[in-house]
Amino acid sequence: MTTPTTPVLGTRRVCQIAVVVRDIDRAARHWSTFLGLPIPPTITTASGDKVGQTYLGEPSNARCKLAFFQMDNTVIELIEPLGGASSWQAVLDEKGEGVHHIAFTITDTAGRTRSLAEQGLSVMHQGGDPATGQFTYIDSRDKLGVIVELLEGYK
Amino acid sequence: MTTPTTPVLGTRRVCQIAVVVRDIDRAARHWSTFLGLPIPPTITTASGDKVGQTYLGEPSNARCKLAFFQMDNTVIELIEPLGGASSWQAVLDEKGEGVHHIAFTITDTAGRTRSLAEQGLSVMHQGGDPATGQFTYIDSRDKLGVIVELLEGYK
Repeated sequence: MTTPTTPVLGTRRVCQIAVVVRDIDRAARHWSTFLGLPIPPTITTASGDKVGQTYLGEPSNARCKLAFFQMDNTVIELIEPLGGASSWQAVLDEKGEGVHHIAFTITDTAGRTRSLAEQGLSVMHQGGDPATGQFTYIDSRDKLGVIVELLEGYK
Repeated sequence: MTTPTTPVLGTRRVCQIAVVVRDIDRAARHWSTFLGLPIPPTITTASGDKVGQTYLGEPSNARCKLAFFQMDNTVIELIEPLGGASSWQAVLDEKGEGVHHIAFTITDTAGRTRSLAEQGLSVMHQGGDPATGQFTYIDSRDKLGVIVELLEGYK
């Protein structure tokens, strides 16, 4: 096999490691103690139907609560699903608490997702808006063992 | 609640994100294509009974195969269990493929594990030898949503 030289993503930096949890306030308290960092504010996302969210190809009104711990070299994100059909809830239901995805900051979501589709890695859950940027979860579980997220234009 | 200022770990750098998989050669091929990095060599660990390995307090002869992708800011590790009682096999059996742990490079494993035990975070799986260093998996699943690994003296 030849050595691959063209990363599909255009980056080799993991910008977030995201853990889906049942109770974000409880998890944030424990992470705060563990890391020696202040408890971060939680953010509740807009209802999915306001931001063009889709899950498995269907419109979704899912929301979640998020909290972010800034580490020295990456970010640890906590996610609590708040109802609606989503990969957050599906992973929590299927596997319990655990890492939901590993994220990469990219450009050209449309082009990257086309390239990934050629590798058999398809979009499972997508949303976001022009103000905050776009998230795209790729169902890479069968091939990579974990979902990956493409983030474009996030503030 | 006061702002925590003393990290139990002494670090806020995630040094590895480890994914447990059933077939490391297959997973490494897919990650290689995805990241645009060469397929790394796989390493087979010493039998656990040769390196003082314990799992849930009992000696373990477990082994695994490992592969490492060096990212710009961290390392993505793949783990394939090769038999014997281990957290690698237990997580794979219970949840299927997915992130097994997030790792931190630390000093003073004994002191850190005592501090973590006071937070209700106990050692679940430990091993390594003076030549390569020591790994300690903490069963932080209930509190943090994911296992964390303490690595000391790894080359």
